[in-house]
Amino acid sequence: MGYTQYCAASARGEGGRMKVYGLKCSYFTGKLESYLRYKEIPYEFRAMIVREFTKTIPAKTGAMQMPAVELDDGRWMTDTSPIIDWFETQHSEHPILPDDPAQAFICRLIEDYADEWMWRSAMHYRWSYPESAKLLARQIADELTTDVRLPGWLKRNRTEKRQFNNFVLGDGVNDRTRTNVEQGYKTLLKVLNNIFETRRYVLGDRPTLADIGLMGPLFRHFSMDPTPAIIMRETAPGVMAWVYRVWNARASREHGELVSGIPDDLLPLLKEIGETHLEALCANAEAFAKGQERYEVDIQGTPYTDLPVSHYRVWCLEMLQKRYKALGENARSGLSKVLEEQGCVEPLLRLPDVRSGYDPEGKTPFGHSSLPVFKEIKS
Amino acid sequence: MGYTQYCAASARGEGGRMKVYGLKCSYFTGKLESYLRYKEIPYEFRAMIVREFTKTIPAKTGAMQMPAVELDDGRWMTDTSPIIDWFETQHSEHPILPDDPAQAFICRLIEDYADEWMWRSAMHYRWSYPESAKLLARQIADELTTDVRLPGWLKRNRTEKRQFNNFVLGDGVNDRTRTNVEQGYKTLLKVLNNIFETRRYVLGDRPTLADIGLMGPLFRHFSMDPTPAIIMRETAPGVMAWVYRVWNARASREHGELVSGIPDDLLPLLKEIGETHLEALCANAEAFAKGQERYEVDIQGTPYTDLPVSHYRVWCLEMLQKRYKALGENARSGLSKVLEEQGCVEPLLRLPDVRSGYDPEGKTPFGHSSLPVFKEIKS
Repeated sequence: MGYTQYCAASARGEGGRMKVYGLKCSYFTGKLESYLRYKEIPYEFRAMIVREFTKTIPAKTGAMQMPAVELDDGRWMTDTSPIIDWFETQHSEHPILPDDPAQAFICRLIEDYADEWMWRSAMHYRWSYPESAKLLARQIADELTTDVRLPGWLKRNRTEKRQFNNFVLGDGVNDRTRTNVEQGYKTLLKVLNNIFETRRYVLGDRPTLADIGLMGPLFRHFSMDPTPAIIMRETAPGVMAWVYRVWNARASREHGELVSGIPDDLLPLLKEIGETHLEALCANAEAFAKGQERYEVDIQGTPYTDLPVSHYRVWCLEMLQKRYKALGENARSGLSKVLEEQGCVEPLLRLPDVRSGYDPEGKTPFGHSSLPVFKEIKS
Repeated sequence: MGYTQYCAASARGEGGRMKVYGLKCSYFTGKLESYLRYKEIPYEFRAMIVREFTKTIPAKTGAMQMPAVELDDGRWMTDTSPIIDWFETQHSEHPILPDDPAQAFICRLIEDYADEWMWRSAMHYRWSYPESAKLLARQIADELTTDVRLPGWLKRNRTEKRQFNNFVLGDGVNDRTRTNVEQGYKTLLKVLNNIFETRRYVLGDRPTLADIGLMGPLFRHFSMDPTPAIIMRETAPGVMAWVYRVWNARASREHGELVSGIPDDLLPLLKEIGETHLEALCANAEAFAKGQERYEVDIQGTPYTDLPVSHYRVWCLEMLQKRYKALGENARSGLSKVLEEQGCVEPLLRLPDVRSGYDPEGKTPFGHSSLPVFKEIKS
């Protein structure tokens, strides 16, 4: 039984359970599955096909993106961050947000960086190198496009070109930025490998949202795509071991404690987030406010140009600001010192009171008007 | 930097250290590297090229196989089982063989099964499914054949055909045997996943030769090749976590204890070994004694026909018999009961005093006349 047959067979689960539509090579499907497995929330995985991706899911959620969740009661959800928040309200045992509000904020910040900033580097490693691009084009074409009547080679070629054009070329990866894009991955590996020499998870001896968020890029892309995987295996074996520790973690078996406060070995990651993700969020939000469709930003001395403006990511910055400002006096005073030293507070608050206009009634992850990260995917 | 460039770059280490010639997708290179890393024995990895594989290594060791080790003093070694035994004599701290002679024998048995029996199933999963075969043909052709002046597509096509013809078709995988070949992998996953729910390694909370031996098939083939990897990831996540736990294990950090005796949850694996590997070793040794070049054997009701006779595997059976007979009274009486109940003693001793005639002076892993597992690899 090959990869595709395996995916298809695993989709024939028992009925009457919540369904997760996605792909077994998908960034955010991997993040959501890691969460559901840890929390031991049963679900049936459905390999998404083109008709669902382009018709059913957008009709139900408003966004052409994966994963999408269909609940038993017929409601649909999309966007893993609010999906996870909603599940936390329904399954309150073994919460993945730490009780300490400062740690909880750090989890949100790491999740947002993993979701939004590491995406470019994950797509670059997947689609810029033939050994990864050919494999993934085959897997995606075979799994997703079973309902498209075209020859396999044509579907694979189209998949490879579309993904490269949209998410590598179209997202600012070029000769000037490639070194910085790859350095972002290597910096993350270095910081995490060091952390996992002394503890099992990012904030202690049980998983938190920081681990679940990082599983987005680190599981189905960096640990599985041949090109970044050999780098992880050879230079950061502790991160590889952590990926599969998280994938195998079940709340009922994990009884470890969290550390107290923000551990020193996490500070280099906060610095990296301040220099990269928060800078990019600010530039994106400024461009959005001016009505631009493309923007440019300097990251760690590397000029990124002609990047697509994302309405969704304006909301990301808005939410981070709201959560930071909502912290109680105590939590904020300790945390602000740590974040200031790592250069995070200035970019976080540079634009006063960011308003995206998205989801003013707090309907996410439900509703029919979810916002995709990028407005336009060209065929 | 792609997969191949990564391998090439990692080969430029400092001089004056022991060199391991192999490939980053190789079964036995992965086994040896797992051992060296655990024992913290420094080495320089060299991506093997065709000239070395077909000329240098056979001239130095007698066998066209990987990995090969070049020591600082100019001596060469091949064959991971005796290589590891020799390293154990040189690096006696943190031994990987348990003190308990019965456990030590079980380690030898599991290592031999992992080395010799799981090979067919690992090669089948790698070369029978396009998503794996195309990827590996690319990686091997790009890494191994950098010194062959032919177009890349031709080298990849030739690699794919050669490996499939020699190690899948030529090793008895066909419509009648395929289900049994795949079941062997799934049985191993099931037994191990169950074990790793209660302890970190096969025989307790630190690695032994059983873990190192199993890394042969389970690391560079089953956990990395896309087809078997998705099966492992989805049905045996504990085994995936164990693979990278072993890869990341360092003797100086692992202070766990071994269990005492042979744990019950290991018995199904011994039964499987008796029904598969030991049966095949007997049939092979009988055919060798009769001067045959091909043989057939019934495994678990599945008829395997036209299998290549291996002189090397006669030696495997000889060594298992010798080690079993060398056990002291105490160790043997307890162990024989366990092994008899799992059906291992009868096939182990069915052929009295197997003599392979290989290595009568005990020169392995040194010497210039090492025996490859298969006599003939057709281009």
